[in-house]
Amino acid sequence: MSAASSAASSAAFSAASAVSKEGDGEYAAILDPGWAVGERPHGGYLLAVVARAALSSAASVAVAPDPLVVSAQFLRPPSCGPALVRTSVRRSGRTITVVNAALEQDGRPCVDATITCGVLPDGSASWADLPALPAEPPADAIDVGAYPDNPFKLGTVCRLRLDAATVGFITGQRGLPPLVRSWVQPADEPPDALFALVAADISPPVVFNLGHRGWPPTVQLTALLRARPAPGWLRVQAEARALHDRWFDEDHTVIDSTGRLICQARQLAIAPPSAG
Amino acid sequence: MSAASSAASSAAFSAASAVSKEGDGEYAAILDPGWAVGERPHGGYLLAVVARAALSSAASVAVAPDPLVVSAQFLRPPSCGPALVRTSVRRSGRTITVVNAALEQDGRPCVDATITCGVLPDGSASWADLPALPAEPPADAIDVGAYPDNPFKLGTVCRLRLDAATVGFITGQRGLPPLVRSWVQPADEPPDALFALVAADISPPVVFNLGHRGWPPTVQLTALLRARPAPGWLRVQAEARALHDRWFDEDHTVIDSTGRLICQARQLAIAPPSAG
Repeated sequence: MSAASSAASSAAFSAASAVSKEGDGEYAAILDPGWAVGERPHGGYLLAVVARAALSSAASVAVAPDPLVVSAQFLRPPSCGPALVRTSVRRSGRTITVVNAALEQDGRPCVDATITCGVLPDGSASWADLPALPAEPPADAIDVGAYPDNPFKLGTVCRLRLDAATVGFITGQRGLPPLVRSWVQPADEPPDALFALVAADISPPVVFNLGHRGWPPTVQLTALLRARPAPGWLRVQAEARALHDRWFDEDHTVIDSTGRLICQARQLAIAPPSAG
Repeated sequence: MSAASSAASSAAFSAASAVSKEGDGEYAAILDPGWAVGERPHGGYLLAVVARAALSSAASVAVAPDPLVVSAQFLRPPSCGPALVRTSVRRSGRTITVVNAALEQDGRPCVDATITCGVLPDGSASWADLPALPAEPPADAIDVGAYPDNPFKLGTVCRLRLDAATVGFITGQRGLPPLVRSWVQPADEPPDALFALVAADISPPVVFNLGHRGWPPTVQLTALLRARPAPGWLRVQAEARALHDRWFDEDHTVIDSTGRLICQARQLAIAPPSAG
């Protein structure tokens, strides 16, 4: 275990994703070992860190308090510990401001992201067609935090429950599709729009239900933020449409405690070989 | 009508989306007035142009013949006519190469894109769950090309049919959801992976079924390419999950004549005010 990952963690989300301005468009971050999968920072958490830097950068040129879209290429996995986010404003307008944000470590680019910033809508949906998910986890939901040796450490810094009926790779039920339902919220704070980015990548890999094992690297993830979440549980449905050779899509739909669509996030990822 | 848009067009897709190398990572393009909506180049066509430049740039450093992901921010709409695409390779690896590509006109950035390049899988899907769409347009499908005054000019350079049962804004049927089915292929060539990017943005805006009129600007569009299309019709289902104030998502699922998933593309767009 490296020095960085053995450091004390379990930081609250707002502290763990904080950035501090270093210079012209540059921000320092400390990637927290509590917001990690094994030794590597969680992908959704990395989106929140780069988005926070981009929002700060955008605030210098426009009124743009919220992320509307975060689109990221995962170039190489960073380690937990210090990182630098370089930002540059590509467009600044009345409705949207577009910022490039690159997270680097030891001078090497790790995450290249573009953040479209603006103001999230407040009004209720004039039209919506969303999956029907229970607002709260059922009594038999699996508490990920009850397994402290789990390499998926977010079960400790978040309250995270999995729908037992959807996780055949845990329960042993065979023949389930690559679809996992879960409920998540930060352990110590109400969820905000940046936490929605964590929820956008919170599911165990849905291809586990197809017999694949090992953590599949995300190549690209684009999250549309649709509204600020209300306090309480975020309900999440993650699913894949197709697995071609080892390439699969995984789509997270994130809904808040009031039933409102908060985030839609699709990623392209590479599945490890199937166990059989 | 401007000089550019009155110029002869109806170029075949491969010619209309061609780029020529100008210098270090720079490519010239001529945005074709046939591949336009009114006076403005079509969004999916612009994705194909920037992807073609990125693939050429990637070919100088790696074996990366196909686009796997094209993620684009539409900063301002370019006009038809000459444009410049500046590319830079962000990562070059064994499996993927990531290239930034910015389309500029008159020195102003219009489209900022990142293209993840690699090799599209050849094998059949080991798992898929796709919408059931007829492989060919039904006899009563609406031929967009039969309306030459339509500002959506792609009905001329493409063969493009709309499912009459889904386009209430044309037939007058009320109460239909924001879901439109269509079939498309280039008029003069078989479809390829780059044309799949045109198909990824081919639908009339689905919010037309909710009473909105006028062309909604796309803010961000991310397309996952999943396989090379077989010759013949591409079938497309476009749909929205939610309309919050004026913000809506539109998701295109593109399937080829063999039933294989070719492309998944989600955009965030701004709906014009509702007609009532």
